[in-house]
Amino acid sequence: MTGKGIAMKELPIHMELRPESGETLYEQIYGFIRNEIRTGSLLQGEKLPSARFLAEYLQVSRTTVDMAYGQLVSEGYLEARPRQGYFVSAVEGLCVIEQPAPGRKQEPGVERGQAQRRYDFSPNAIDMHFFPYATWKKITKNILVDANSDMFSLGEQQGDAKLRTTICRYLHGSRGVNCEPEQIIIGAGNDYLLLLLEKILGRHVHVAMENPTYVRAYQIFQSCAYPVSLIPMDENGIRVDCLRQTEAQVAYVMPSHQYPTGISMPIGRRMELLKWAAEEEGRYLIEDDYDSEFRYKGKPLPSLQASDSNGNVVYIGTFSKAIAPAIRISYMVLPYPLLARYRQQCGFYSSTVSRIDQTILNEFIEDGYFERYLNKMRKQYRMKHDLLLGELRPFHRAFKISGSNAGLHLILTDRRGRSEEELAGQAEAAGVKVYQMRHFRMEETDREPAMLILGYGALSQEKIKEGVALLKKVWL
Amino acid sequence: MTGKGIAMKELPIHMELRPESGETLYEQIYGFIRNEIRTGSLLQGEKLPSARFLAEYLQVSRTTVDMAYGQLVSEGYLEARPRQGYFVSAVEGLCVIEQPAPGRKQEPGVERGQAQRRYDFSPNAIDMHFFPYATWKKITKNILVDANSDMFSLGEQQGDAKLRTTICRYLHGSRGVNCEPEQIIIGAGNDYLLLLLEKILGRHVHVAMENPTYVRAYQIFQSCAYPVSLIPMDENGIRVDCLRQTEAQVAYVMPSHQYPTGISMPIGRRMELLKWAAEEEGRYLIEDDYDSEFRYKGKPLPSLQASDSNGNVVYIGTFSKAIAPAIRISYMVLPYPLLARYRQQCGFYSSTVSRIDQTILNEFIEDGYFERYLNKMRKQYRMKHDLLLGELRPFHRAFKISGSNAGLHLILTDRRGRSEEELAGQAEAAGVKVYQMRHFRMEETDREPAMLILGYGALSQEKIKEGVALLKKVWL
Repeated sequence: MTGKGIAMKELPIHMELRPESGETLYEQIYGFIRNEIRTGSLLQGEKLPSARFLAEYLQVSRTTVDMAYGQLVSEGYLEARPRQGYFVSAVEGLCVIEQPAPGRKQEPGVERGQAQRRYDFSPNAIDMHFFPYATWKKITKNILVDANSDMFSLGEQQGDAKLRTTICRYLHGSRGVNCEPEQIIIGAGNDYLLLLLEKILGRHVHVAMENPTYVRAYQIFQSCAYPVSLIPMDENGIRVDCLRQTEAQVAYVMPSHQYPTGISMPIGRRMELLKWAAEEEGRYLIEDDYDSEFRYKGKPLPSLQASDSNGNVVYIGTFSKAIAPAIRISYMVLPYPLLARYRQQCGFYSSTVSRIDQTILNEFIEDGYFERYLNKMRKQYRMKHDLLLGELRPFHRAFKISGSNAGLHLILTDRRGRSEEELAGQAEAAGVKVYQMRHFRMEETDREPAMLILGYGALSQEKIKEGVALLKKVWL
Repeated sequence: MTGKGIAMKELPIHMELRPESGETLYEQIYGFIRNEIRTGSLLQGEKLPSARFLAEYLQVSRTTVDMAYGQLVSEGYLEARPRQGYFVSAVEGLCVIEQPAPGRKQEPGVERGQAQRRYDFSPNAIDMHFFPYATWKKITKNILVDANSDMFSLGEQQGDAKLRTTICRYLHGSRGVNCEPEQIIIGAGNDYLLLLLEKILGRHVHVAMENPTYVRAYQIFQSCAYPVSLIPMDENGIRVDCLRQTEAQVAYVMPSHQYPTGISMPIGRRMELLKWAAEEEGRYLIEDDYDSEFRYKGKPLPSLQASDSNGNVVYIGTFSKAIAPAIRISYMVLPYPLLARYRQQCGFYSSTVSRIDQTILNEFIEDGYFERYLNKMRKQYRMKHDLLLGELRPFHRAFKISGSNAGLHLILTDRRGRSEEELAGQAEAAGVKVYQMRHFRMEETDREPAMLILGYGALSQEKIKEGVALLKKVWL
């Protein structure tokens, strides 16, 4: 071996830096630690040396170590805890990171940090098999034929009036949302809209979230340095009595189909929540209606916004889930007091979506393709949903099965006192990836029974059957 | 007259609300005040009644007045000064707002708040006449032919690796920027990238800006609640001696062709600036290289980033100016310490640009179309630039002419003690719109001579000649 070999006595790290390897120093440090985690030499929860310590120890710059740690954090191997340092993550927690890190191609069939897995019940993935590529191309072509300098100019800050009118009509018809096109802001994805909303709400906002919740929204509020209160849920959703005990002014909720619990909030709880919001000036509810398009049982409940008569609800939705992730178009419906603030404080922010993309989407909806596609996908997802529910019939004695009215995933709650790690580990060993609820809990709660999340959006019917058969062997 | 008539004794406002008019109350209030400003009944600098007062007075809700004021602020008729209230803007200041407000169509040929004007020397506008629409369409078509679910999936957070590699090569070749593709973040416009940069730099950053400066960047820093120090400039650009007297950690600068002064920062001043940044941990320079593609005289100076050996420069550029405003693709090159922070704190933010759009742009550059288009536009803009300079020859006794090395506008500094208002007013009356420097000064400076900005990007050669001829009549 060449280069300097370093053994850290206090830590199970023995690192070799090889200057002649062609890899940069930070890539070597990154690769070494990643490997230690993958092979189990560094275990979940273990603390890493501070970046400063490691830099001095290895005689490299602080930035080099920061880069390596940063890469590992962004890929989900490490987590940074403020004022505490870096810790090895639960590797199953990686589901929240949807993409391989830049520059690092994922080998086909092999997921990051895991042995080969053939059945991935991801709750994030969607089925693109039936996407009408030809229609999309045709619309694009037609639009470009007539395109002129107007189409290539910068559009209105809030989004093109035509598309806002179309979205307004769609939301009213399908979700009961009451709004005018002028209340709609179109933006390049929900993450961007939440950043913009921060600028509208201001710097000092205390946010409440359901626990468990959508991890990225939590991360965004964290990166906005908002204090976040995590509110427990019961079978009807967020507990408004607990919400009342916090200082929160804004609550981020998913009433139609909570992610990841799958709970649909009944009307009584909705009214309680709206009452809370109306009680004090400046309280708002952010309704993330991320997958309301897919509902399989009973009459779809309208949005929370539809029941709001006081202008306390900010409604957010996206076309990424219902059409394709590449469609970077989301929308936010602002109540008038916030719309006024938007215009005063943020009206100058340029639109983040090109006019061309807005025009394509508008035609896709206006010409009826969106509705047809939604109906087709609803049927597809319902078939998979029913199939999965059917295949899970033998599981009912060992698990409670819930969240089955809507969305693209189900929840299995263990009745036999086993742990999520244990169950997910057994599945893993059998070649099946399931997702653990604890990775969506942003705070430890009282000892809860193990809950596993099974998404079926992207799996074929065959894969669903085969995957469940494997789970049956190891879990029942 | 029907409805209630209201006269405000202290203010020159006599407002009628007509409930039966079909217009909402807020539209009526908006329309009334706008008209008062347009017709000169409300004059620049006049303070409006507080929203609360007006709401009580008119017996409408506070939100209704907020909406009306918000609309007027977003269209540039009013400005909101923190803790002071609403004031009538200088209507010529409207140039910074590029689009009509949502839902309000601009009548053709008539600009907002102004009588008909035939010659608009806007420094923002660009010439789209030579844009290769056919090529763009062809590339789009070809890409969509091969498009599959991969193209419609969510891309890498930082932007597609291929496009980042292409941009990296382009920036190195044309601007001397030293970076790796992994340092590049692609985002939907500069505004978005500045929001993301805020999340990387953190909440408590003191920013320094050149004065005068790019108004939207100033507004964005304001909306981030950053304290902003405005630094005076001399003929070599930002005065580093003055910068040193502030608490600023970050300075936002445009070294290649300062907007709007047109100053190109010489190498000596650049070195001073880099020295300032290197002196203390955590200091950064944000280099906005917004129109560096267009340079007409002498060897183009490389970017400031090219001279930075300490990793203190964040380089920002955009394709909106060089290709088309509709191309919502900008890029930011992060030095490694900030890249590490980005990955740790912001790596989860989804990309705001679709893979399809990134792929189209990548082909446009890779296949040489971008270079060809740039060369063509450089020639066009140089022709207009030379023509304008030539036409302005008779102006030399009355004005100093500067900013003529690069970019898309010139500066005329009055030698005869006239005011900007006076000169712009005379031009206005003759049907020519020129832009006043004071609207780009974010803080009053010592009595400066009047400076007028003449942009020529979007005007035809004929229009330039005719416009200057009209100016000659009123100014000389």
